[in-house]
Amino acid sequence: MNIVARLGRGFLRANVQALDSTVRSLPHLANLLPVLPTTTLPETNRPVPLRTDDSEASCSNRETESLHKSSVEDLTWGVRQSEYGGRHRGQYSPETTRWMSSVPVSVDETEGSGQVERFQTEAVDPFSLVADELAQLGAKMRDMVATEVPKLAQAAEYFFRMGAEGKRFRPTVLLLMATAVSTSIPGSTLAAEAQSIRDRQRRIAEITEMIHVASLLHDDVLDSSDTRRGISSLNFLMGNKLAVLAGDFLLARASVALASLRNVEVIELLSRVLEHLVSGEIMQMTGEPEARCSFDYYIKKTYNKTASLIANSCKSVAILGGQPPDVAGLAYDYGRHLGLAFQIVDDLLDFVGTSLVLGKPALADLNQGIATAPVLFAAEEFPMMEDLIKRKFARSGDVEQALQWVQQSKGLERARELAAYHASQAVLAIERLPPPESQGAAQSRRALVDLTQRVLTRKK
Amino acid sequence: MNIVARLGRGFLRANVQALDSTVRSLPHLANLLPVLPTTTLPETNRPVPLRTDDSEASCSNRETESLHKSSVEDLTWGVRQSEYGGRHRGQYSPETTRWMSSVPVSVDETEGSGQVERFQTEAVDPFSLVADELAQLGAKMRDMVATEVPKLAQAAEYFFRMGAEGKRFRPTVLLLMATAVSTSIPGSTLAAEAQSIRDRQRRIAEITEMIHVASLLHDDVLDSSDTRRGISSLNFLMGNKLAVLAGDFLLARASVALASLRNVEVIELLSRVLEHLVSGEIMQMTGEPEARCSFDYYIKKTYNKTASLIANSCKSVAILGGQPPDVAGLAYDYGRHLGLAFQIVDDLLDFVGTSLVLGKPALADLNQGIATAPVLFAAEEFPMMEDLIKRKFARSGDVEQALQWVQQSKGLERARELAAYHASQAVLAIERLPPPESQGAAQSRRALVDLTQRVLTRKK
Repeated sequence: MNIVARLGRGFLRANVQALDSTVRSLPHLANLLPVLPTTTLPETNRPVPLRTDDSEASCSNRETESLHKSSVEDLTWGVRQSEYGGRHRGQYSPETTRWMSSVPVSVDETEGSGQVERFQTEAVDPFSLVADELAQLGAKMRDMVATEVPKLAQAAEYFFRMGAEGKRFRPTVLLLMATAVSTSIPGSTLAAEAQSIRDRQRRIAEITEMIHVASLLHDDVLDSSDTRRGISSLNFLMGNKLAVLAGDFLLARASVALASLRNVEVIELLSRVLEHLVSGEIMQMTGEPEARCSFDYYIKKTYNKTASLIANSCKSVAILGGQPPDVAGLAYDYGRHLGLAFQIVDDLLDFVGTSLVLGKPALADLNQGIATAPVLFAAEEFPMMEDLIKRKFARSGDVEQALQWVQQSKGLERARELAAYHASQAVLAIERLPPPESQGAAQSRRALVDLTQRVLTRKK
Repeated sequence: MNIVARLGRGFLRANVQALDSTVRSLPHLANLLPVLPTTTLPETNRPVPLRTDDSEASCSNRETESLHKSSVEDLTWGVRQSEYGGRHRGQYSPETTRWMSSVPVSVDETEGSGQVERFQTEAVDPFSLVADELAQLGAKMRDMVATEVPKLAQAAEYFFRMGAEGKRFRPTVLLLMATAVSTSIPGSTLAAEAQSIRDRQRRIAEITEMIHVASLLHDDVLDSSDTRRGISSLNFLMGNKLAVLAGDFLLARASVALASLRNVEVIELLSRVLEHLVSGEIMQMTGEPEARCSFDYYIKKTYNKTASLIANSCKSVAILGGQPPDVAGLAYDYGRHLGLAFQIVDDLLDFVGTSLVLGKPALADLNQGIATAPVLFAAEEFPMMEDLIKRKFARSGDVEQALQWVQQSKGLERARELAAYHASQAVLAIERLPPPESQGAAQSRRALVDLTQRVLTRKK
């Protein structure tokens, strides 16, 4: 996707300086952005030719291109801004949000002339908004595994704890997204239809969690890691045999559940996710030395391994909700940027977390030979880092040297800025949705925005 | 499915004695068949209440029940008959086949009064009939893996050799089935449509082979076996990591290819197969001691692990060919019985093959604690076998003792009879198809029948 192209004149006027300085402070991005305007602004709303770090663009939704013509104004989340801004029209504040139709959907609408719907929302814990459904989902998954595969009962407990640890992040996002893009259906005869839609969207949340846990199980085999977030891995507890089998079981269940939705578009989207997950793992395991030094490669791998699942499941939820392609595209954008931010923070925490807080050994990536954002940024200041990256930190002292360079460089700071940039883009996607039709939709959007901040500030 | 119910008066008249004696020689079946007539024949074509070993009936196709009313006459493949019979009307002979409409589709048609189409077919190697398409399929799979996952190039060669060893049995069956149920489309404007149908059916063959190889790769991890049919396993060559990853890669590719068919019925069928494969593996790995002594359990496991894939892909080929449910049901029946026969022979060869001929260690199943048909039959003559089965032949001398009992009993002979029975049922399904519409269809049916014999007589 072409980010500047999607930001209209209004947004550019307000934010181009921050955008510019941030992007230029990210040389890997800046190299890709020769045409980024520094002082002059485009005079029209036509897309500005621009490439970004979105090398996985082919995976994203072309349908959103119609949105390139729209304008966004007064958005306070500049790309460098990792703190909340002030409180005025069209802005987001941490305590209270007022949603306004400051995002005309077509260029025919003049700025601010769109239909104005206002819903006041209070700050609320995103997880509590969907707590009941999450509990049901957790119980359902646990029962399924425990009942159908008695010998995997231990695994069921493991799945549950995985979910509890991660607060079932993905299902939470999906259930909130379902409400955020919901269209109110008046009349009692249509209540059944609304319930049916919600059931199908909930199934996407289940399928996504199954795919996620399956990939963790198979990663456990792949990584031979014996701990993950402080929980002894299933691999360690029960051996490779059951880890592979349990993963396959969940994937098979996910496939059946997906097929039962009988929506070919959604089936295609989530099948493609499976392919991305494997591609990401292959990229990480078997990448050529040069590729592993590339920021593009890192972002593409991160999209494949983490962001694709949440992006495409967000989009699937919108599609099942009967939303048009532009809204589905924004749901995809939110998930994609949130997923990238999430993973970049994860990569960061591997350097700054301690095994006590994080529940897993620090420097796990380096020890596995994997170079992430902080290392890649540090390599710009310490070019000899590339040699270490290419040999996967395999020589004695490599890990310690890499850590030292990361700490001596702006690597960690810039990785955090990159995560903040993607979080801000996720917020932008929510802001660009058509006006919410209900208090519930507004509240869920608020919660989705809150989640972007939680992703940035989490400590484990 | 209700086997006797599906055999009409004509078949019963000719074969009930052989059927009866065989089924009664299989006590596990006989116990399930209390109402099987011994000397009297049913006076009507109404289904005879009867349960068989088909404990996985719920997996099969209810739509075929309409066929229970039809009658089949003069079929020489009785359940004990593993050799070809004589050559007369409605029979199959090894040298030449004349397909006749001896299978009225509805009870309203009197015996033999249906439309008669005759195609003379010569004996032909089933594999040579589809050799070109098989070569393309093999090259396509090899290229796909080699191109997209360079580091798995070694695996690509492995996949290829797997296929060469096994002569790509599953794709062969599916391509033959596609022709066997093809309906001739006259006129040049429809040629493109016929080609499109064939392309989609070929894709099913590719998907099936991908799923099959993926399951072998993951089984390699599961079994920790280092050889399979004389080829060092990928697991052994490249480690568990790549075996899991390569399997996941193929599964993901299969999912994407399946979704791209955009046929929800076919997507559901093959998604269900994934679940069966995992269930079968779970049943084998984690079955309770009592269950592992059960013939029902063995057949259900065998359906899940082997027959479901070929059965449901045969059915999918028929569905994509635009065939009605009854024909799709017969395609399913053929695949299911062929798959069961194939696996029972495989289990048998584990006892009678040598590692020289078979290319894998004999008694692999016993050594892995798995009881198959020969052992279960032997246990009827040597009840102490059950103790060994329950403890998975884990004590010193157990494997040797089990082998001795198998050799001293009729275990091997009866396992071969059971395989022959399923082969005959596969032939029956082909015989019951509507008359072939072309020479090619008749020839492919002949080849499908030939395959049932090859399955029975193979030595490795």
